[in-house]
Amino acid sequence: MTTETRCWVHGATRADGDFPIENLPWGVAERPDRQGEPRIFVAIGDSALDMTESAGFGILAGLAPRIEAALRMPTLNGLMALDAADWTAARAHVTALLTSGAHSIEKHARRDAVLIARASLKMQVPAAIGDYTDFYASEFHATNVGSMFRPNQPLMPNWKYLPVGYHGRASSIVVDGTPVVRPHGQTSATDEGPPTFGPSKLLDHELEMGFFFGGAGNAMGNRISVAEAAKHLFGCVILNDWSARDVQKWEYQPLGPFTAKNFCSTVSPWVVTLDALRPYCIPGPSRKEGDPAMLDYLRWDNDFVVDVTLEVLLASAAMRAAGTAPTRVSIGSFKDVYWTMSQMLAHHTSTGCNMRPGDLLASGTISGPAKENRGCMLERTWRGTEPITLADGTERRFLQDGDELTIRGWCERPGLPRIGFGECRGVIMPAR
Amino acid sequence: MTTETRCWVHGATRADGDFPIENLPWGVAERPDRQGEPRIFVAIGDSALDMTESAGFGILAGLAPRIEAALRMPTLNGLMALDAADWTAARAHVTALLTSGAHSIEKHARRDAVLIARASLKMQVPAAIGDYTDFYASEFHATNVGSMFRPNQPLMPNWKYLPVGYHGRASSIVVDGTPVVRPHGQTSATDEGPPTFGPSKLLDHELEMGFFFGGAGNAMGNRISVAEAAKHLFGCVILNDWSARDVQKWEYQPLGPFTAKNFCSTVSPWVVTLDALRPYCIPGPSRKEGDPAMLDYLRWDNDFVVDVTLEVLLASAAMRAAGTAPTRVSIGSFKDVYWTMSQMLAHHTSTGCNMRPGDLLASGTISGPAKENRGCMLERTWRGTEPITLADGTERRFLQDGDELTIRGWCERPGLPRIGFGECRGVIMPAR
Repeated sequence: MTTETRCWVHGATRADGDFPIENLPWGVAERPDRQGEPRIFVAIGDSALDMTESAGFGILAGLAPRIEAALRMPTLNGLMALDAADWTAARAHVTALLTSGAHSIEKHARRDAVLIARASLKMQVPAAIGDYTDFYASEFHATNVGSMFRPNQPLMPNWKYLPVGYHGRASSIVVDGTPVVRPHGQTSATDEGPPTFGPSKLLDHELEMGFFFGGAGNAMGNRISVAEAAKHLFGCVILNDWSARDVQKWEYQPLGPFTAKNFCSTVSPWVVTLDALRPYCIPGPSRKEGDPAMLDYLRWDNDFVVDVTLEVLLASAAMRAAGTAPTRVSIGSFKDVYWTMSQMLAHHTSTGCNMRPGDLLASGTISGPAKENRGCMLERTWRGTEPITLADGTERRFLQDGDELTIRGWCERPGLPRIGFGECRGVIMPAR
Repeated sequence: MTTETRCWVHGATRADGDFPIENLPWGVAERPDRQGEPRIFVAIGDSALDMTESAGFGILAGLAPRIEAALRMPTLNGLMALDAADWTAARAHVTALLTSGAHSIEKHARRDAVLIARASLKMQVPAAIGDYTDFYASEFHATNVGSMFRPNQPLMPNWKYLPVGYHGRASSIVVDGTPVVRPHGQTSATDEGPPTFGPSKLLDHELEMGFFFGGAGNAMGNRISVAEAAKHLFGCVILNDWSARDVQKWEYQPLGPFTAKNFCSTVSPWVVTLDALRPYCIPGPSRKEGDPAMLDYLRWDNDFVVDVTLEVLLASAAMRAAGTAPTRVSIGSFKDVYWTMSQMLAHHTSTGCNMRPGDLLASGTISGPAKENRGCMLERTWRGTEPITLADGTERRFLQDGDELTIRGWCERPGLPRIGFGECRGVIMPAR
C-alpha cells in the first residue's frame, strides 16, 4: 500500500518531513486566535488538526463519546487515561479525516477552521505530569560516565540486573523552545570540599527518549507485568535532561542527582504514539555473551526496542546571528538501550508503586558504541579533554551562554515513510 | 492570657488533646453526609469546622473573597497559593468563630451543621502534591546509617555543606490509616549479586516531618533565599517514608533510592501551620565545634528549628486483637536536625528549580543522640542485631505483616498549651 498519494494535506508527503499520515502525533497548543485556551491537536504535514474545533463542528462524530470528551480536554491526560483500543480508534478516525475517502474533510466547509498552520501554534507540555522518572538504560552511557566518576567500577554490580532509575522533578519540565537559565549550585574542586556556590561551569545536555504512561493506572500494591506494560505505553517524546555536571559530582552521593537535574528538562511537543512507532520496533534488546539472564519479572519474549535515530545539534549565538547551520554534536539511536520501555515500567511498579496516566518516564542518556554516538557533552568531549569545534571555529567542552541545543529524532525503514518527532530545543541564558 | 477558658468547643481544652484553639490545623476530608465531596476542615477539640458549609451560611463573611474562595476548594492548594498574611487572616477568623466574643458561632443556628464530629470524617491527603522531595537532614541518622552502609565513610564530604536530598514519588503518598502492602523487589545476599526477586524481608518505617510549600511559586530560573524561604512554609505534617531496606541496599548505587521508597509514604492528615508552631520554634540549628561554616545562601541569622516531639509506636496483630497498648519504639524531636526547613527549601531552589503551592518536602529520618531517639528500625535494632521486644513478647528486627506502626507528634512548652499533629498510622499487609 502506498499511502503517499492518499493524504491530501500540504506538506504531509514530503520525504524529509516529520509528520506524514502514518505519524499523527498528539500535542497540546494554543492557536493564535485562542490564546490561553490550550487544546489537543494532531500534527499533519505543515498543519495541525484542532480537536476541540473539530468536535464543535461534528467532525469527531462516530467516535465513542468517552474518546471525543477526552479529545476536548486541555491536556492529553484524558486520552492517556483511555486504553490502547481507544487510542487506535482515535488514530483511525483522524486518518480517515485526512485521507481521500468517505470521511475526508478535504471539502468540508470548516476545513480551514480546524486545520491550521502548525507554525502558528504555541506548543505546551502535552500532559499534566504527575510524576517524572528518569532511568539509566544505556550501557554505553553508564559505562562511559561510570568510568569517569568511578574508574574502578564503571558499572555497578546491580546495573545488568535492574533498570537503574531515580525520581525526577516534574515542575520544571518544559516544552521545546523554552530558554534554559544556567543554574547556580555548590561545586568543589576536590572530592573532599570545601565547596563554593555560583553558576555551574559544566552545563550539559542529555539526549533521551521519554515515554508517557497510559491506560488505567494500577492500584497501589499491584504490579504491572512486563508484558502488560507494553499496553501502557501511550507514546514517546524526545527529552533533554539538562544537567550541571560540576554540581552533580559534588552532590550525588549517597542519594543520587538532585539539584544538578531539577532546574529544567525539555520535551519535544508532539507525542508519537506506539501505533505509529510499531513498524520501527525491533525485537530486543540484544544481549552480549556474559550478560546475566534477566529475572522473570523483566523477561518477555515479545519485548522490543524502537529504532529512533536521534541527532544533537549545537549552534552558538554567533552562528545563529550569522545564519550558520548548527554543528552536529552526536547521532545515535534509541534502539541502543539495554533496558526496554516495558522493562522500565515493569520494574517501576515491581514494588506496587501506582502509576497515573500522564506520568513521564525517560530512558536516561542514550549513547552508542562510537564516539559520535555519545549523547551528552560529558561523554562526547570526554570530560572536556576532547573539545568539539563548532562551525564558527570556537571550541566547546560544555555548553556556553547563548548556545542553542537542538535534538531531533526520526524513524526510517526501507519501504516505509519517515516519521519524526519534531524538535527539542533550548537556548542557554546567563545565570541570574 | 489564659486561652483555655475562651474556646467553647468540646474537647478543645483537654490537657492531652492535640487540637486546642491555639492549633487550628487545616485538613481535607469527606463528611459522612457528603461522600465523594472532599472539603477543607479545621480541627478543633473533638470536632472539625467545615469551611464549605460555613461559607454557604455566611460564616466566612468578612474574609477577603480570595481567601473564602480558597477555603471552598476540595484541596488546600488554593489556600497554600495565597500568602502568609492571608493564612494568618484565615486563622484569626476561625479563632474568632470558635471563641466567646462578637463573632462566635456558639449560638449560631447552623452550628451543628458546620461543626461536626472529627471522628466521623474520612480524611484525605490534604493537597494535590505536585512534587515530593525527601531530605536527609539529621546528622544522627545519616551517621548511623552511613556507618552501616559505608563503614569507612559514614558522612560523605558534602553532607555538612548542603542538605542532601532526592526527589521522591508523589503518586504513592497516602493519608493516615491507609494499609501498606509489603513490596516486592530485587535483593541480593551479597553486594555483588546475583539478586532474587520477591517480597521485601526488611520493611522499615522512617520517622519524618513533612512541610508544604506555600505562597507564590518562584519562576523557573529564580532562587528563593533562605530568609524568604521561611515565608513559604505553609505548615507541617508527620511523614512516614516506608522503606524496603534490602531492596534499597542492592539498588541505590549510583543514583539513589528508587523502588525501595516509591511504594508508599504516609502523611498525617492535619497540616499544623507555622503560625501555630511559632511559639515552639527555637533559634538554630546548633552547630558543633569543627562543623564548617555555612555558605552564604544557606545562612540566615533568624533561622529556626521546631521542637516537635515525635513518638513511634508499634503494635502486632496479636496485641491489637488483645487490646494491648502499643510498644513505644522510639521518641525524638524535630529540633534535632542539622538542616532547617528554610535551608532545605533555599537549597532546593538554588538552581532555579520552580516550586508550586502544595509541593511537599520532608526532613528525612529524624534521629537523636540516644538509642531511643533512632527514627527507623534499621537504626533502632542496629540492622537487626539488637531486636526490640514488643508488649506481646515477640521480637522485631523489621516490620512484620499485621504490624501497625503509628507516629504521633506534639509540641509542649511551659506556660503554653500542648498542640499536636494527630496520628500517622499504617498496617502492614502481606505481599500480593
